[in-house]
Amino acid sequence: MLFQVRMDINIPLNEDINKVNEMKVAEKVYGQSLQRSGKWLHIWRVTGQYANISIFDVADNEELHQILLNLPLYRYMTIEIVPLNQHPSKI
Amino acid sequence: MLFQVRMDINIPLNEDINKVNEMKVAEKVYGQSLQRSGKWLHIWRVTGQYANISIFDVADNEELHQILLNLPLYRYMTIEIVPLNQHPSKI
Amino acid sequence: MLFQVRMDINIPLNEDINKVNEMKVAEKVYGQSLQRSGKWLHIWRVTGQYANISIFDVADNEELHQILLNLPLYRYMTIEIVPLNQHPSKI
Amino acid sequence: MLFQVRMDINIPLNEDINKVNEMKVAEKVYGQSLQRSGKWLHIWRVTGQYANISIFDVADNEELHQILLNLPLYRYMTIEIVPLNQHPSKI
Amino acid sequence: MLFQVRMDINIPLNEDINKVNEMKVAEKVYGQSLQRSGKWLHIWRVTGQYANISIFDVADNEELHQILLNLPLYRYMTIEIVPLNQHPSKI
Amino acid sequence: MLFQVRMDINIPLNEDINKVNEMKVAEKVYGQSLQRSGKWLHIWRVTGQYANISIFDVADNEELHQILLNLPLYRYMTIEIVPLNQHPSKI
Amino acid sequence: MLFQVRMDINIPLNEDINKVNEMKVAEKVYGQSLQRSGKWLHIWRVTGQYANISIFDVADNEELHQILLNLPLYRYMTIEIVPLNQHPSKI
Amino acid sequence: MLFQVRMDINIPLNEDINKVNEMKVAEKVYGQSLQRSGKWLHIWRVTGQYANISIFDVADNEELHQILLNLPLYRYMTIEIVPLNQHPSKI
Amino acid sequence: MLFQVRMDINIPLNEDINKVNEMKVAEKVYGQSLQRSGKWLHIWRVTGQYANISIFDVADNEELHQILLNLPLYRYMTIEIVPLNQHPSKI
Amino acid sequence: MLFQVRMDINIPLNEDINKVNEMKVAEKVYGQSLQRSGKWLHIWRVTGQYANISIFDVADNEELHQILLNLPLYRYMTIEIVPLNQHPSKI
Repeated sequence: MLFQVRMDINIPLNEDINKVNEMKVAEKVYGQSLQRSGKWLHIWRVTGQYANISIFDVADNEELHQILLNLPLYRYMTIEIVPLNQHPSKI
Repeated sequence: MLFQVRMDINIPLNEDINKVNEMKVAEKVYGQSLQRSGKWLHIWRVTGQYANISIFDVADNEELHQILLNLPLYRYMTIEIVPLNQHPSKI
Repeated sequence: MLFQVRMDINIPLNEDINKVNEMKVAEKVYGQSLQRSGKWLHIWRVTGQYANISIFDVADNEELHQILLNLPLYRYMTIEIVPLNQHPSKI
Repeated sequence: MLFQVRMDINIPLNEDINKVNEMKVAEKVYGQSLQRSGKWLHIWRVTGQYANISIFDVADNEELHQILLNLPLYRYMTIEIVPLNQHPSKI
Repeated sequence: MLFQVRMDINIPLNEDINKVNEMKVAEKVYGQSLQRSGKWLHIWRVTGQYANISIFDVADNEELHQILLNLPLYRYMTIEIVPLNQHPSKI
Repeated sequence: MLFQVRMDINIPLNEDINKVNEMKVAEKVYGQSLQRSGKWLHIWRVTGQYANISIFDVADNEELHQILLNLPLYRYMTIEIVPLNQHPSKI
Repeated sequence: MLFQVRMDINIPLNEDINKVNEMKVAEKVYGQSLQRSGKWLHIWRVTGQYANISIFDVADNEELHQILLNLPLYRYMTIEIVPLNQHPSKI
Repeated sequence: MLFQVRMDINIPLNEDINKVNEMKVAEKVYGQSLQRSGKWLHIWRVTGQYANISIFDVADNEELHQILLNLPLYRYMTIEIVPLNQHPSKI
Repeated sequence: MLFQVRMDINIPLNEDINKVNEMKVAEKVYGQSLQRSGKWLHIWRVTGQYANISIFDVADNEELHQILLNLPLYRYMTIEIVPLNQHPSKI
Repeated sequence: MLFQVRMDINIPLNEDINKVNEMKVAEKVYGQSLQRSGKWLHIWRVTGQYANISIFDVADNEELHQILLNLPLYRYMTIEIVPLNQHPSKI
């Protein structure tokens, strides 16, 4: 089941830089494992923003929730979710 | 070059039904030819809405503009465009 | 899978009254059959508005889309969808 | 009398973790006692958010206010309330 | 039980003037009977607007809904409702 | 002259509790003296919020401004003002 | 008593041109008589818009309401009102 | 050349009171010298807010920018600018 | 003096096509004469929209207003204006 | 390829002044080198704001992203991007 998710990341200016860098590394590892599993289908960087637009292919809402909650940078994110369907004009 | 485009389609209630159906057929033909050419990379239906979220891979802004302008249902659409980049965490 | 759906219905003032009444009857019949099937889990009237807040329990986004698209009054509706999960504090 | 209430919870990043955990436990205990009493009729987690959508069945506005005010996490919440009625199409 | 209700009235420019005037008379008769019954506690004109801000004292949400639905000008109104309580500092 | 005023009060989480409590007592004393003078005509609590909706009956804008400025909790408030008139349908 | 009023005028494209021109003449006559009386203190055109920003000096809200209601173009206007005071730094 | 400028002033609660008072004095001195020069044509207090609505009469955008930038309280302000013209109905 | 102007053009679906085409030709002629005079400094098409973003270099607000008012498609436009200055970092 | 970019800069009041001044110098150096290269085509100051409106001429979205990310003041900016095309009426 498909969802579009936009994540805008806003790390406070005074956050500890080492802690942030560790989280970014963890975020990348975590995100890539989900890409390999086929659940994080697409990820694009929004031009000029610290944000991404992604497509998830998950079993249900619950799985999507767990995936997002476990994002190492989740606490800094604003998240918008749009449920998607296959489009009838898709070849 | 990648762009996310959301198209919300709003056809007036009193529009001629035959004319609308012809335009929808033309829209499908046009959209599928662009999918085949690799320019209309992805298209998803937004759940519950007469709307789609799409990813375009075009040479430049000008090509994107011409593609959208030629949509048979363009006159009924509200269009939002978000420029995208490859994401550094993409595998 | 659970979704909250809010439907705001806006029928133009000059719409044919008989046609509208027929659609309202069809809407009720359709909605009640979905309630009986367990897919339209809850429906409440929003106080003071021609609108409802509903909870759907469907197999996936696609089923929700088909259910909404087939609403006899769909063309007059503005629809907002919020994906829901079981809440960990629910008894 | 029925109300939909959406609670979005936003705990500051630097809040003491032990204090927060205690409040979350108290929130769960409090919420479940209200569920058992029949006043907190439904509670769902909003997918991807630290938020819930709930239905309350209370005697009046005053009772709803007291219930919300006593939420252990109330000070961190943004609350939206929609008064609801039984829907005429409900089976 | 108390509610603040704001009604903004927007009658289309081409609406039949006699029909509108009849509705306005009916609106006044209806509103005044509700004022006499004590249910429509206060009504004020919003300066410069075709709108009012009112306070209703009703048994429950259902009664408020029925009162509003029966307003002769209801079909032209945008309605906002805010549930109210007695204020602890009120003398 | 009548005005509707909505006051939303937002006291920072780390504000000194004793200082806040003193201000709340002062706020109540001040508000009640204005109620007794007939200038603060009505005050209601907004259900579920730390906010009130009030009606003021003052000589002019200047008097309203001075009353609001002297609220002990003024610095924590967001204030919205709507000028009101007697309504022609009021009995 | 001072108020800022912004009037945005939106005349439908298909409105009868003679009727509109008559109303514009009447609007000018009416507005200038109010300027002469000292009630319509200032009027400025908003650059690029069919709109004005004005300052009124009236006895009370009721007088402002009657003045605005009698504008020949009132039915085409969106009106925003901001109550003003003398400023303590004014020389 | 005329501009309407609205300045909303928001001084953080923990700002040093002496420093703020000095700035307010400087603000008043600065503002009054501009009023005397004829550049700060009008200034009104927005009722109930720490805000003003002003009319400036300046040579060009650049002069307006320099005037605003030099406001002692500029760093605490949110500023909105509306370019204005003489109104054709002005007497 | 510099201004950014964004013009969004929205021609109703049922407008006479010949009349529209004539206006578009007139719009182009008019716009190009202003470009030649140096007043309409820049014009860009907004990708995917029937809209432009332009830079005007005019004597004052009044001249900008007259230029915009005389646009043959003015009646179909929504116009936003941002006053600009030379930037201190411009080479 | 052309983009309009608006940058609003918001430096916290308590930021170290020396650090900020260094960043501003670096920002100017960086911005001017991009102007010389032809990539930062235009830059204007928004009147009354710490903000600029700029036009970039870049190879693609990726280049625009890298340019913006490297702005010394990037962490303090809110950035809005509008893709642009050559306008067909441009002389």
